Amino acid sequence: MPTTNGHVKPGRSEVYSEVQTSRLKVSLPLPSVLKSSFDVVDGRKSSAAGNPDEIAKLFPKLFGQPSVSLKAGGSLPKQSLKIGIVLSGGQAPGGHNVICGILDYLQNRAQGSTVYGFRGGPVGIMKCKYVQLTYEFVYPYRNQGGFDMICSGRDKIETPEQFQQARETAKKLDLDGIVVIGGDDSNTNACLLAENFRANGLKTRVIGCPKTIDGDLKCKEVPISFGFDTACKIYSEMIGNLMVDARSTRKYYHFVRLMGRAASHITLECALQTHPNIAIIGEEVAAQKQTLKSVTNYITNIIGKRADAGYNYGIILIPEGLIDFIPEVQQLLAELNEILAHGVVDQGGAWKKKLRSQSHELFEMLPKAIQEQLLLERDPHGNVQVAKIETEKMLTQMVEVELENRKKEGKYKKDFKGLAHFFGYEGRCGLPSTFDSNYCYALGYGAAALLHSGKTGLISSVGNLGAPVEDWTVGGTALTSLMNVERRHGKFKPVIKKAMVELEGAPFKKFASMRNDWSLKNRYINPGPVQFVGPTSKVINHTLMLELGSQA
Amino acid sequence: MPTTNGHVKPGRSEVYSEVQTSRLKVSLPLPSVLKSSFDVVDGRKSSAAGNPDEIAKLFPKLFGQPSVSLKAGGSLPKQSLKIGIVLSGGQAPGGHNVICGILDYLQNRAQGSTVYGFRGGPVGIMKCKYVQLTYEFVYPYRNQGGFDMICSGRDKIETPEQFQQARETAKKLDLDGIVVIGGDDSNTNACLLAENFRANGLKTRVIGCPKTIDGDLKCKEVPISFGFDTACKIYSEMIGNLMVDARSTRKYYHFVRLMGRAASHITLECALQTHPNIAIIGEEVAAQKQTLKSVTNYITNIIGKRADAGYNYGIILIPEGLIDFIPEVQQLLAELNEILAHGVVDQGGAWKKKLRSQSHELFEMLPKAIQEQLLLERDPHGNVQVAKIETEKMLTQMVEVELENRKKEGKYKKDFKGLAHFFGYEGRCGLPSTFDSNYCYALGYGAAALLHSGKTGLISSVGNLGAPVEDWTVGGTALTSLMNVERRHGKFKPVIKKAMVELEGAPFKKFASMRNDWSLKNRYINPGPVQFVGPTSKVINHTLMLELGSQA
Repeated sequence: MPTTNGHVKPGRSEVYSEVQTSRLKVSLPLPSVLKSSFDVVDGRKSSAAGNPDEIAKLFPKLFGQPSVSLKAGGSLPKQSLKIGIVLSGGQAPGGHNVICGILDYLQNRAQGSTVYGFRGGPVGIMKCKYVQLTYEFVYPYRNQGGFDMICSGRDKIETPEQFQQARETAKKLDLDGIVVIGGDDSNTNACLLAENFRANGLKTRVIGCPKTIDGDLKCKEVPISFGFDTACKIYSEMIGNLMVDARSTRKYYHFVRLMGRAASHITLECALQTHPNIAIIGEEVAAQKQTLKSVTNYITNIIGKRADAGYNYGIILIPEGLIDFIPEVQQLLAELNEILAHGVVDQGGAWKKKLRSQSHELFEMLPKAIQEQLLLERDPHGNVQVAKIETEKMLTQMVEVELENRKKEGKYKKDFKGLAHFFGYEGRCGLPSTFDSNYCYALGYGAAALLHSGKTGLISSVGNLGAPVEDWTVGGTALTSLMNVERRHGKFKPVIKKAMVELEGAPFKKFASMRNDWSLKNRYINPGPVQFVGPTSKVINHTLMLELGSQA
Repeated sequence: MPTTNGHVKPGRSEVYSEVQTSRLKVSLPLPSVLKSSFDVVDGRKSSAAGNPDEIAKLFPKLFGQPSVSLKAGGSLPKQSLKIGIVLSGGQAPGGHNVICGILDYLQNRAQGSTVYGFRGGPVGIMKCKYVQLTYEFVYPYRNQGGFDMICSGRDKIETPEQFQQARETAKKLDLDGIVVIGGDDSNTNACLLAENFRANGLKTRVIGCPKTIDGDLKCKEVPISFGFDTACKIYSEMIGNLMVDARSTRKYYHFVRLMGRAASHITLECALQTHPNIAIIGEEVAAQKQTLKSVTNYITNIIGKRADAGYNYGIILIPEGLIDFIPEVQQLLAELNEILAHGVVDQGGAWKKKLRSQSHELFEMLPKAIQEQLLLERDPHGNVQVAKIETEKMLTQMVEVELENRKKEGKYKKDFKGLAHFFGYEGRCGLPSTFDSNYCYALGYGAAALLHSGKTGLISSVGNLGAPVEDWTVGGTALTSLMNVERRHGKFKPVIKKAMVELEGAPFKKFASMRNDWSLKNRYINPGPVQFVGPTSKVINHTLMLELGSQA
């Protein structure tokens, strides 16, 4: 095949770049405990994250089962297994290595095993759409980003009919186990599937793996979800470049919105990696019941102080989900949805009288473009499309208006030039960092070991991540122990609560202790592109270290 | 100083990341000819790129002087020099290494020399604002991105008073030479300054260096401007990630606008590096006198064909300057500027009758948000702010409308989801690639050699760039030989014509020969992050090789 650069991907029609090819050849280290024979040792009986009585009712077969850890010594029975794998939800760097880990485990420890990859996410289980995953098929995806090996999907196995379909697939393929690679929702679903299989007398076991670049699926035994490290490093590379640009150009304020709708972990991690002048953490905004006006003022005040100090430029990080954290905005959106569902918006603005006075005031404060976005763009259910609101532009414009006002009052004398950026998709599918490559491989290898040992309803858990790979711990955490319930449509639904940025946790406290210094002085750090070779390739994820430290 | 990661930048208050620190320590190779003693050998008498008679009148002292090349043997006189350096125009990765090259040359070949860095661009020359550049001062910027060592500016030395100021500075500092690091405009200015100094009997000589990420300053002897390689590699990393995302998610069309207002080199280079489904090259659009509608149809047709082939996703690259290449858009903008200068825009739309019919039609075809942008956002001179028009969003929306129409006619059956991106500032200030680091160091080292040998009015020229560094050629090209004239306000002004993408050149022809294959099949390449260590760090700029090939 003619190529302009790179190599043909082994066995595929695609072309690989030099860096992709070099990553393919890199061998993956394993924690010591996975290199020799091991036992799977039960811990203590587990409970639930909240409402244990309700969780016990929802998971009569699985509730209370212990989490487990792998210990050297002993050995698992020699038997071949039939395993299905599914990728669920949004992309995260490293997903392919989880699959490589599963395959390599089976090849080393359970020869003669068969692995199926369900295509396009959980719908692949329901419709029994799969591909057999052989070493030759999987090899080209080793250490590569994306989920394109078998693709992912956002469907859920929810209705009795869908569970029935899943059971039929499990029986048809004679599955010993399924590995579900996904976030909080997908792992909740994995646990429901494990319970359902067990309750229906199927042998098929289910093990989850913690995936999400947002970093909001974690607990004591699962210190981090995979993909977070790579995504944050890619965003931090770009933020670092903007910092150098700002310091060179000396005339722009860069407003950078970062992925992370439910929690602000990415913004916090990128802040710790790069030292921006301002970083807004949604959880803090919510805890302090801040308003859009107070967030705007916070930013504007710092810009004013920087102007006095001679700096007319800066970097501001904003989490994608910011407006979800501001109560008054939620209130305004609810009122708008209601008004627009039952009436029309007249040009004269008489409709605004239907808004409560606080919401009316807030609406009037918004930039015209945002007002129109709120009134015009609605999803099929008639709701405002919050995800489409460009928070970084909204804040840039609000800050600009506020600075104009201060200028008129003689309190600000510079020209403000704001530039808005959104870093999202560029990070979800990057080449996995060395950390994510190794972590995912261990997660997959461990997940297969858990299935091999007969376990179900656990999430693969690799710990002690601040240490060298050989010292990492491996085990499985009872999914029911992570659960709480939420009441929806009059029924209790199990949920794994999203892990939010803890305002008392070490990473936030570290950030809080430094941000004043960062705001007025320029402590920018430019991490540069992720390196795969040489000493800098071994730099460990920073927040991770802090968080581990805080848990020790 | 407390740091959360990285090292304190030597002698500075900033903190360096691991990768920055590792780059600091990397020694820079030199072309063989610069490592031993050499002679500066004159070539043939030169002419001009166009209108030689006018250029001869504008540069009576310099016109016709030969370009030069460095050859091994001989030696330059032992003398110390006083040199000033100025960075001019937008940031480009590698600028700091040009300065390092100048300093290292003087330290090795002209001991006792003094170097001044003019602060903030040409205004630093006019106002005699400078800092003395010592090895200790410069060292922390070695192989680092940005222009923050002495910063840049966009002022020009134009009026007789400004030339007078420049002469005063040159006399005050007793300068033997000035190195101007900049793009086409800045190098034109460098030549005017060289002529002015010579005409006024000053000893101060002026040498230019080719800088611009846009890649539009080049000629036979200057195969590429510095910064282009790094910027394209950073953009290509992100485009490659979006490709993996597209292939994994299978539901998004990513519309990516890339920097490059005057010429589409960046878009072409990134296309060759990553193989997108569509890349629009402005020069081709202009040559074919395409309309916005025809560009939209071209994109929509490919999306339609991809849908038939089962692909409902893709990657589309668009040059920042696209609308500057479309004659009908230029016409519309001119009419709008005229109308808005002399009247008001009424809500009813009666003002539209003032538009010519073709412009009226075009205006009605534009998305509402773009229409408003054209009517509302104006610069201080009342002109439409073309740079603020988000071409990628405009095209996304126009394609969406066209696909909706086709859907109604039953010709398109998928759901189109477009996502718009702009990659610009992230690339201008990245850590210089190995190529740009080495190239800039040689450019600087060579510029100092040219000054040392008594030359003026040349641009530092390093060639044979496809070969290993030791085989690179070094010389200087007569700036007057690159010039043509433009008539402005009734006077001839010298200009270095921007190098556009040549539709008969090897890079475009290569692209044109492959784009049909890319459009319907997915030949995506994910170059990954720039590597500084290991074999992949030595991958040479791709277009560069092609272009060199085409010149051989």
